[in-house]
Amino acid sequence: MRFGYDIGGTNIAAGVLDENDRLIAKGSVRFPRGCGNDAVIDACAELYQSIVAQAGVAPEDIAGVGVAVPGSVDPKNGIVIDAHNLGFHHTPLREMLSARTGKPVYLINDADAATLAEHRIGALKGTSTAMLVTIGTGIGGGLILNGELFCGGRGNGTEPGHMVLCNGGRHCTCGIDGCAETYCSATRLVKDGSAFGCTSAKDLVEKAKNGEKEALDVFESYVDDLGSYLASIVNLLDPEKIAIGGGVCGAGSFLLDPLLENVKRKCFFETCSEIVVASAGNDAGIIGACLLVP
Amino acid sequence: MRFGYDIGGTNIAAGVLDENDRLIAKGSVRFPRGCGNDAVIDACAELYQSIVAQAGVAPEDIAGVGVAVPGSVDPKNGIVIDAHNLGFHHTPLREMLSARTGKPVYLINDADAATLAEHRIGALKGTSTAMLVTIGTGIGGGLILNGELFCGGRGNGTEPGHMVLCNGGRHCTCGIDGCAETYCSATRLVKDGSAFGCTSAKDLVEKAKNGEKEALDVFESYVDDLGSYLASIVNLLDPEKIAIGGGVCGAGSFLLDPLLENVKRKCFFETCSEIVVASAGNDAGIIGACLLVP
Repeated sequence: MRFGYDIGGTNIAAGVLDENDRLIAKGSVRFPRGCGNDAVIDACAELYQSIVAQAGVAPEDIAGVGVAVPGSVDPKNGIVIDAHNLGFHHTPLREMLSARTGKPVYLINDADAATLAEHRIGALKGTSTAMLVTIGTGIGGGLILNGELFCGGRGNGTEPGHMVLCNGGRHCTCGIDGCAETYCSATRLVKDGSAFGCTSAKDLVEKAKNGEKEALDVFESYVDDLGSYLASIVNLLDPEKIAIGGGVCGAGSFLLDPLLENVKRKCFFETCSEIVVASAGNDAGIIGACLLVP
Repeated sequence: MRFGYDIGGTNIAAGVLDENDRLIAKGSVRFPRGCGNDAVIDACAELYQSIVAQAGVAPEDIAGVGVAVPGSVDPKNGIVIDAHNLGFHHTPLREMLSARTGKPVYLINDADAATLAEHRIGALKGTSTAMLVTIGTGIGGGLILNGELFCGGRGNGTEPGHMVLCNGGRHCTCGIDGCAETYCSATRLVKDGSAFGCTSAKDLVEKAKNGEKEALDVFESYVDDLGSYLASIVNLLDPEKIAIGGGVCGAGSFLLDPLLENVKRKCFFETCSEIVVASAGNDAGIIGACLLVP
């Protein structure tokens, strides 16, 4: 049995994974924003006790604890280097959580955790070279190379949202102009849609589906941008599959059909990599964190 | 001892590599353009005899023959799928050359061959995750992942020149608008410079060095584009090193210094991957082809 946390800036979610990679118990609490690191660790420790009890598992049967955080980690030294939304900066999270759970603790970036889950039980199962691209406020993701999670050539992981898609274009929060996430994130749909009254990416997609011209123009431009972005990854790595995740995928074939067509056209090879929707679901972060435990 | 060919649309170059990865003999002949595949094979066979003799090596001491071609190959079946400049289309080159040399023959894309050489004896020596980017008429390159040449997730290799750098931008020969090679190749410098009388990329660089405003504007824009392109690769793969090769590198620190500064600024990680100049030299294709022989 393995225990996993997915610590986000809004909620701390956690669960217990059994030998068949099934989540047999899970739960969550609000992230104690602004209360300091000790409050976060207290919340995590309480969640651990309650979920292990809920799972009906003897404490000694938990082999270890994986932790997914939205930020950069130093897994070797058990330190969260920076997770701005959690207020963690060079935080020795492994030591802090190990002291409270009595278990070995393993850290991972949350997008990498989701990629591990997608590879083990989701849309990337069985692949040797593949990528998960998560479309949300920004663009995140993780890479599977040689059948394993690729943690960056220097251990920094991957920051696929900061590949440049239109040099000198839209201004990114990172300070650079033209990053892929300024074109391909859900935020881009919200921003462009707000000019004509859209309240969310979902709202924009609905209006586009209804044939409203302004919304349709934005949506088509978005598909072309996302298509070029995915084609860049296809042409560099020739992956077997790219899975895309995030709320935008709720648009279904209205997004997928023209997107596949677009990527296919821009793929340099005779046949295109498969583009599929991520399927490990909302618990992918927890599951991936659990999978870190050897 | 290993024998290697680097077959290009202008010349067929070849050489013999010894146990210490040194080229002990080499030579070249004009590519018999427009004379058909048999003429190419004849030229290759003659070159083989003369270079093996020149090396003073007994024919039985040649373990095998590697062949680098500018195109896509199917190494498993020994077929050149497409090498437009050579007129090879689904050409069973392994069988054809094996019949004439009496040796096992191994095929590889020329950019991948150069990457192998760069990794064994050049600027990428000792790296586990790295990339060679060759800047010429187009943009080519190869990837080292987990310490080995990466041949694409589906065996198609890599086409890094067709990552999108400015979606909807300059028209590429591949039919898509905005590919990296339309911004980062030497061809771009020639094209932009021709508007004010430059005759070559070198000429443009000289004029820029002399402070001529129009040339300097083009050069600075080029550095910014190439910087964004390399930063995209850095942010996706976090490589230890990227080596750049091609005539443009002759500009030396006039190119390298502002380029490094530019990539550093766009790198998402705390420290940037190393950007270095390729050092395996003009024989990298031959050497890489030889290195294919087990």
